Amino acid sequence: MSDTSPIGVFDSGLGGLTVVQALQKLLPSESIIYFGDTARVPYGNKSKELIIEYSSEISGFLIKNDVKIIVVACNTASALALDTLTKNVSVPVSGVINPGAGEAIKVTLNKHIGMIGTVATVNSGAYENAIYDIDKSIIISTQACPLFVPLAEEGWLEGDVVEKIAAHYLTPLNEKKIDTLILGCTHYPLLKNVITNQVNEKTILIDSAEAVARKVQAQLSTLNLLNNGSQKGLLTCYVTDIPMRFETVGKRFLGSSLDNVQTVHAF
Amino acid sequence: MSDTSPIGVFDSGLGGLTVVQALQKLLPSESIIYFGDTARVPYGNKSKELIIEYSSEISGFLIKNDVKIIVVACNTASALALDTLTKNVSVPVSGVINPGAGEAIKVTLNKHIGMIGTVATVNSGAYENAIYDIDKSIIISTQACPLFVPLAEEGWLEGDVVEKIAAHYLTPLNEKKIDTLILGCTHYPLLKNVITNQVNEKTILIDSAEAVARKVQAQLSTLNLLNNGSQKGLLTCYVTDIPMRFETVGKRFLGSSLDNVQTVHAF
Repeated sequence: MSDTSPIGVFDSGLGGLTVVQALQKLLPSESIIYFGDTARVPYGNKSKELIIEYSSEISGFLIKNDVKIIVVACNTASALALDTLTKNVSVPVSGVINPGAGEAIKVTLNKHIGMIGTVATVNSGAYENAIYDIDKSIIISTQACPLFVPLAEEGWLEGDVVEKIAAHYLTPLNEKKIDTLILGCTHYPLLKNVITNQVNEKTILIDSAEAVARKVQAQLSTLNLLNNGSQKGLLTCYVTDIPMRFETVGKRFLGSSLDNVQTVHAF
Repeated sequence: MSDTSPIGVFDSGLGGLTVVQALQKLLPSESIIYFGDTARVPYGNKSKELIIEYSSEISGFLIKNDVKIIVVACNTASALALDTLTKNVSVPVSGVINPGAGEAIKVTLNKHIGMIGTVATVNSGAYENAIYDIDKSIIISTQACPLFVPLAEEGWLEGDVVEKIAAHYLTPLNEKKIDTLILGCTHYPLLKNVITNQVNEKTILIDSAEAVARKVQAQLSTLNLLNNGSQKGLLTCYVTDIPMRFETVGKRFLGSSLDNVQTVHAF
């Protein structure tokens, strides 16, 4: 493992490609190995034990592939498995909760932050813990939005139905007068337009992908592991099942087409 | 394996409990082992290879538990894995496609049948094949309804949003003037009210659970494997992950509470 080793990124599915996109923009020389557990997606309604088991298996795979850092791009896995991974894994591990929480604290004016995510992420209390660790005076209101993942995966990103579903989830947060909303799931940035339509005017949406990329940059810099080469890094993707409409869905998340994709057996 | 051996039933999740309910009603003396692959649900957007792999693993587990017949209660697994299982498994295997197709053919008057299911089931063409095998003159129109499974699992079974989603999926079938609609997924009977509201008046909905139970009865009778005892059979459930709100969701599908549930590792 050296500064030219790749960054390992994993997610339950393809949503974490939004984090890959932010990493590629900030750290273009870095090679990235992306692992999408598409055979076992979604994680959001699974038990903590199972999410820890899956995350540990994937981290083992990434380490075998000589990664220098592991980025847990999945909010659910970050919320439930990060502590275990940090203890057991031989390279630094970076989640998405702390960067998202930090960003929201910087932005809020009325100190009332909302967070939306999967049932598992919301129930974990991970965002509350991360925010209270920095500032105990902040009020946090959370809301699970279990239909947002299937809507995003279906590409059902606009129109009356999705606006109504978003209104159903977001009205309670509007009533609580949040001024900042953390998109606590890598799928949700695809629904940004609808979410913007349904939150109170001036509510700022926090998509943690860019904050995550900045944190990874800082971690690698501290460890003297930044790749300072001038060549563009490579992206290699592993998935546990080729999902239907893989190209379309992957492109939607990454913002560019996916070339180097291999299917591996889900352990 | 003897006539007192249990019937094995499996599904990707808890939807197959509707088939268990029909079996319990028709064959109260039979003991049933139900296997819900809740760690890896849903199957509807996975590849054929993966669905065959999972179905084979589960069938192996059921055979180790001395079942006398395996009922594939999942439409997606029936559509994609039944041929492989029938070839490789040492006990009779019964799916849900043929009984549902047979029932629809009996009922249709204008010989135009609709079928709704997961993307994988619809793409497999399994219902078309089963229907054409019996009657080539029938017209079949199919529609994948990928949001119905998450809606049913969320318990979002009525109201404006779900009516609109159902209308979106069912309008093309209404326009084609189907008079019979196969609910080609074990989750869909939970949405029966909404589906009834959104199909043309007089369209008959086919929920294959009862037809499946009758087919299993006939198969066991032919093989001289019916349990003719007077004692009520036992239901034992195995799941690969305890899903959130397991009790509520399971009860919704089974119609009564679930007592004897064990979690097993997903192979």
